[in-house]
Amino acid sequence: MKTRAAVALEAGKPLEIMEVNLEGPKAGEVLVEIKATGICHTDEFTRSGADPEGLFPAILGHEGAGVVVEVGEGVTSLKPGDHVIPLYTPECRECASCLSGKTNLCTRIRATQGQGVMPDGTTRFSMLDGTPIHHYMGCSTFANHTVLPEISLAKVREDAPFDKICYIGCGVTTGIGAVINTAGVEIGSTAAVFGLGGIGLNVIQGLRMAGADKIIGVDINPEKKAMAERFGMTHFVNPKEIEGSVVAHIVEMTKTEFDQTGGVDYSFDATGNVQVMRDALECTHRGWGQSIIIGVAPAGAEISTRPFQLVTGRVWKGTAFGGAKGRTDVPKIVDWYMDGKIEIDPMITHTLSLDEINHGFDLMHEGKSIRAVVTF
Amino acid sequence: MKTRAAVALEAGKPLEIMEVNLEGPKAGEVLVEIKATGICHTDEFTRSGADPEGLFPAILGHEGAGVVVEVGEGVTSLKPGDHVIPLYTPECRECASCLSGKTNLCTRIRATQGQGVMPDGTTRFSMLDGTPIHHYMGCSTFANHTVLPEISLAKVREDAPFDKICYIGCGVTTGIGAVINTAGVEIGSTAAVFGLGGIGLNVIQGLRMAGADKIIGVDINPEKKAMAERFGMTHFVNPKEIEGSVVAHIVEMTKTEFDQTGGVDYSFDATGNVQVMRDALECTHRGWGQSIIIGVAPAGAEISTRPFQLVTGRVWKGTAFGGAKGRTDVPKIVDWYMDGKIEIDPMITHTLSLDEINHGFDLMHEGKSIRAVVTF
Repeated sequence: MKTRAAVALEAGKPLEIMEVNLEGPKAGEVLVEIKATGICHTDEFTRSGADPEGLFPAILGHEGAGVVVEVGEGVTSLKPGDHVIPLYTPECRECASCLSGKTNLCTRIRATQGQGVMPDGTTRFSMLDGTPIHHYMGCSTFANHTVLPEISLAKVREDAPFDKICYIGCGVTTGIGAVINTAGVEIGSTAAVFGLGGIGLNVIQGLRMAGADKIIGVDINPEKKAMAERFGMTHFVNPKEIEGSVVAHIVEMTKTEFDQTGGVDYSFDATGNVQVMRDALECTHRGWGQSIIIGVAPAGAEISTRPFQLVTGRVWKGTAFGGAKGRTDVPKIVDWYMDGKIEIDPMITHTLSLDEINHGFDLMHEGKSIRAVVTF
Repeated sequence: MKTRAAVALEAGKPLEIMEVNLEGPKAGEVLVEIKATGICHTDEFTRSGADPEGLFPAILGHEGAGVVVEVGEGVTSLKPGDHVIPLYTPECRECASCLSGKTNLCTRIRATQGQGVMPDGTTRFSMLDGTPIHHYMGCSTFANHTVLPEISLAKVREDAPFDKICYIGCGVTTGIGAVINTAGVEIGSTAAVFGLGGIGLNVIQGLRMAGADKIIGVDINPEKKAMAERFGMTHFVNPKEIEGSVVAHIVEMTKTEFDQTGGVDYSFDATGNVQVMRDALECTHRGWGQSIIIGVAPAGAEISTRPFQLVTGRVWKGTAFGGAKGRTDVPKIVDWYMDGKIEIDPMITHTLSLDEINHGFDLMHEGKSIRAVVTF
């Protein structure tokens, strides 16, 4: 069949909207009609050429929602008409990682997904001249139709709006999951969130849901404050407006009469800046503070600290897709949205057509959008 | 009263054995007759002048065992004749850290202990000419008698030999506790231990006790192999004798038919070398590997890694005194020794008199001792 897609032909160039060929689903695969897709920084990381593992030509996009059109041989968990969210972190429920119960990082199709192909080593997309087009993060949601492995699709309820729940395919789950799955924040905790973009806001609403008492947001842009407060931030710190280091400032503001040590119980980096990651670790409480890295750092960048920070009880962790097991957890998060336990609507600041997708990248660069969503 | 002690008069100089003045215990303090004390690398770190926070003159030593001679006003948990192990990590059971249940790093007397004085801000030790002598790590076990806060003493059974259980005051508890308290190693785990000195051996016997299946020891000295095997090491890696990196080597040797990702579930650094700490992190299993820093790094040294290591599920932690709550956990570890669940005797390779204490430091430098113990 043919479908319309935004194709990244070369690193650093705008996406080109064109008609492409799409082969039907092979065994274990599913053809999905994408109804909506968010535009995420990770797409931009690859589009721009900053990602050393980026492949071209490719159909980017990994934050989508849609409807099953056709299933390949042997597919048992999905049928045409099912509403689904594509998963860049699949959940096969059979590999050593899935069965460990300790991680969401399914390894079943990791190698081929990284190479921009389906598990059988080939692509389903091609240019009209026959040139193969790479898949991206196993999803390629910047296309009106795409093919994914069955294990890379979460089945979700049918009354949920595509143009909102597509955000659960990456940003929402990453932020909320970092709080719930990776950190395991307890009621009454104190926390600091570095970076109040889309991920940071979702960390904040995750902390609110987890019952955190003090939710400190940190950003150098004061315009982020109002929206973060709406999602549950209780205190705002602008590193440009304080005296001394942000670490000392946060330690000071978390001291209590009983606990003069200070420091937050949990911190989250949602900036991708390795110096901020260090601050995030070092502002946690001696003895038990945990810092969770969410942001993607530039290629080759390294985090550093004195080992004394860890020896005195701080824990340095990271999270991918919020530690969420996609097929199991994503449908629950959709329920939370539909039940009003979490908010998404105010974060979808722009809705565009596929033809306007490059404008969506511009809005992200200019800091004007929290999330721009393309609808088909 | 007067007592005999090994005094560190200046950084970098041998200890001097001399008679010193010792004031009796004030309120909340206890006078202890030290019966045996180990010589630890941390003592050497301070004696040598490498410790930027080192104070002189001081009576070093923090790994002792002895008998209560006299208790000060208000002391209720100890009485003359009780057998005790001094604790450089006290356990007040009242401060925010103790009551958190999340850490052993009691803060009650942290400030004064770091300044080499008792909680009232003064020292009990002085030279015969009246010059005050600093306490060290709240213990000062290189003296035949010493005074400690009540909260810095673990009461232990009276049938346990002082010249063995003194090692529980630091090395044994640090190594075993890192496994049990900090890492929480489960039965059937795989683990790598970097550095097969006294701490490393205790990590290994902790892993054996925790039921680890594969216990990989890493050391550049092949002479460490036999003793490590005696304590439970199942595989030995000499980084000088393999091709390629130690990380790749350990990942390869932990692959199984079912799990082709490879990497150990837990790793422990007992070297204090920040490059080794990095290797220890990076050889753990993607998705859930935990690496525990035990070793004390040189002043100013920093650990580094790519954040990707954490984002893909590895956890970087540290441990001080093995995460053990001294008054609660040390008596249990003494029981484990007396019950034969752990071994200490083969690690006490040299027993010396106080007059020979500088020889004990020489043996450590020459790598001839695992632990040299001074008995009084």
